Amino acid sequence: MINAISFDANQNRNDADKIGSNTSSANRIMSRCDQLQKISSRKETYFRAYLTPEHRQAADKIMRWMRAAGMLARMDPAGNVVGRYEGVNPGAPAVVLASHFDTVRDAGRYDGVLEILTAIECIAAIRDRRRRFPFALEVYGFADEEGARFSISFIGSRAMAGLLKDQDLAKTDIDGITLAEALQNFGLSSTRIFEAARQSDEMLAYFELHIEQGPRLQSESLSVGAVTGIQGQTFATCTFKGRAGHAGTVPMDLRRDGLLGSAEAVLAIEKIASKEADIVATVGRITVEPGAANVIPGRVIFSIDLRSPSNSRRNLAWWKIRESLEAIARRRRLTVEFIPIMSQDPVSCDPRLTDMVAEACGEVTGRAFRMMSGAGHDAEIMASLCPMAMIFVRCKNGISHHPDEAVISADVTDGYRTLLLTIDKFAAAL
Amino acid sequence: MINAISFDANQNRNDADKIGSNTSSANRIMSRCDQLQKISSRKETYFRAYLTPEHRQAADKIMRWMRAAGMLARMDPAGNVVGRYEGVNPGAPAVVLASHFDTVRDAGRYDGVLEILTAIECIAAIRDRRRRFPFALEVYGFADEEGARFSISFIGSRAMAGLLKDQDLAKTDIDGITLAEALQNFGLSSTRIFEAARQSDEMLAYFELHIEQGPRLQSESLSVGAVTGIQGQTFATCTFKGRAGHAGTVPMDLRRDGLLGSAEAVLAIEKIASKEADIVATVGRITVEPGAANVIPGRVIFSIDLRSPSNSRRNLAWWKIRESLEAIARRRRLTVEFIPIMSQDPVSCDPRLTDMVAEACGEVTGRAFRMMSGAGHDAEIMASLCPMAMIFVRCKNGISHHPDEAVISADVTDGYRTLLLTIDKFAAAL
Repeated sequence: MINAISFDANQNRNDADKIGSNTSSANRIMSRCDQLQKISSRKETYFRAYLTPEHRQAADKIMRWMRAAGMLARMDPAGNVVGRYEGVNPGAPAVVLASHFDTVRDAGRYDGVLEILTAIECIAAIRDRRRRFPFALEVYGFADEEGARFSISFIGSRAMAGLLKDQDLAKTDIDGITLAEALQNFGLSSTRIFEAARQSDEMLAYFELHIEQGPRLQSESLSVGAVTGIQGQTFATCTFKGRAGHAGTVPMDLRRDGLLGSAEAVLAIEKIASKEADIVATVGRITVEPGAANVIPGRVIFSIDLRSPSNSRRNLAWWKIRESLEAIARRRRLTVEFIPIMSQDPVSCDPRLTDMVAEACGEVTGRAFRMMSGAGHDAEIMASLCPMAMIFVRCKNGISHHPDEAVISADVTDGYRTLLLTIDKFAAAL
Repeated sequence: MINAISFDANQNRNDADKIGSNTSSANRIMSRCDQLQKISSRKETYFRAYLTPEHRQAADKIMRWMRAAGMLARMDPAGNVVGRYEGVNPGAPAVVLASHFDTVRDAGRYDGVLEILTAIECIAAIRDRRRRFPFALEVYGFADEEGARFSISFIGSRAMAGLLKDQDLAKTDIDGITLAEALQNFGLSSTRIFEAARQSDEMLAYFELHIEQGPRLQSESLSVGAVTGIQGQTFATCTFKGRAGHAGTVPMDLRRDGLLGSAEAVLAIEKIASKEADIVATVGRITVEPGAANVIPGRVIFSIDLRSPSNSRRNLAWWKIRESLEAIARRRRLTVEFIPIMSQDPVSCDPRLTDMVAEACGEVTGRAFRMMSGAGHDAEIMASLCPMAMIFVRCKNGISHHPDEAVISADVTDGYRTLLLTIDKFAAAL
């Protein structure tokens, strides 16, 4: 079925050149990333967490931009922002373009929001050309993907996909505030959050554009690529418990120092990940109790993030890590405890949609490049709701989750064109 | 010179038995430790830091007990509490009995406050017997010894000894509040804090009773001992700087992970301290930036606490630690920076006063036991102002800076008797 106000890809590119240059679109997208970067809970660094005043402020700004692009915009019961551009007939199922607008601590300015702002720019272009498809277009800005506040990630997309669980509401932030309480404080409801869930029959497809957050595209001298899948991830916390004591009086050989055990553990994890192909492992967070310079650490809690495109290699590495840490604990007269937070199998992108993305990439760059994603994305959650595909945009030196995160305007233009072309191809194939 | 209302040690003990049993004194001292333990900024654990509402609350309670024991009580410009019991002639120089009433995080209930409450109990006994010495007795409760808030220790005793420096006022707590601002917020003044300083000619002697915080007395089956000196301490922070990055996309061999370097450093410090005789070293605090589970640590800051009774062994160990950490940083393509916070030479107690304490210990336990202090104490600061000596009281299994910190009532009685006897001996020797 072809849309009543149909078009082909070439016509689209000519249109875009006439109505407003792609360069000015890229400039607007990047300037909006800059504006969002100013909405931070820290003065010196960029950090915006779920259910904070900065979440509200950024959501309001994004909804204003959605409305300016011709969409109806609302905040859903999970705090996500949703813009909808109706199709030929109101109420039709939607193609969803989405990513997240929360950040890690000390973040870069393109992770997540680049998709949201590129998608809004695409809708504006489609609206400017007075085009309507046989489907609606929805832009989602997910309010939590990074999980920086509640130590569980993907709260936004999981709420939307109907995958949020009752027990998630009891998760606490660093101040002991539960997710349920934080929702209330934000003006949302801990019971109504489940109403953010959408049904499979409301969604036709999901497309997410994202900076690569790795060095592959740069090494291939390509601005964009099609993602074939997202690697699997094990996420857990580990606690070593010994005995606190006075730093001046307890002899070295009588100590049961939780940090010494944890230091050995961190190095053992590095060794295991470095030995195996296609494995990365990271300890990114560590807390020492009681945490005073003159007290021997009694208890140390740290995170373990383990990823691989291969399920078997990941599971084997996880088993080796546990074995190794248990041996360290025995030797040092400590106890060790693992709390699994998440185990996510690798997720494949939808082959049909990925072909469309790859074709679009080929038209834009001359090469239909395909690659795995090292990082996790909302797309892996959405895969349970509808077919999904992803576009990667080159970022400088593969750096992400860092203030040095950077993209160039020409690549943002290519990403924008690829996303527009992909929508066209999807419509043409209906 | 002998005091007008003189007495000897035996008479004192007989008096004490008549007026109120030593056991009831121990019970009162321990019950007051329990009461102070309830004044905590945390619900589950015991923590009271400098210039907090809990500091104020504990100070008020201690001043009430001081007044009930017959002292004039005040808060000095550093937030210390001071009780004064005049001698035969008002305004005479003082013998000072003191320790601190701040705590580490997750503290035990006897560290510091045991002396303050034992000293108050001694003054009450002296007042009950209507005794006056040719010197005044002052009880100081120092408001900061542990340094849990501003990462510099002994603020209370240093202010009293005139050793506080202008630059100390710029030190910040974890929220970036300077010591100067915290003083103002507490209702004190950052300029007037220097007026807490006392002059040498106002002070005749300083006696501090303290739980041992180590296992020596228990292994000797003794309730109390005389301290000959306090071991030296180097205290510094160390920063390893690498590069933050995405936990899912940066290959293991391209990482410059600050936590991996720090983990090696922590183990190297342990190894150096374990090899040398009479050396202990502790990393009690570590901070990872940005500190998210899915971000490679870019910067890690940790504390180093190094102690030895020998200056040369301590300095050699410190040099080895620096050498070793610099080598780790080079190998891992990190930078390393050391910030020295404090280097405190070992301090000897005054031999004449220590003889009095040892004699008193001998009369109470049958053995005049002498020992070094592994932990630092306000006494080492006071040594610059007047002769000082210390009494140690046995604590269970040598555990301190931990909720399991414990003393038995009979040992508190022995400590109380030893302190009273020591005051008598000092008066008798004048």
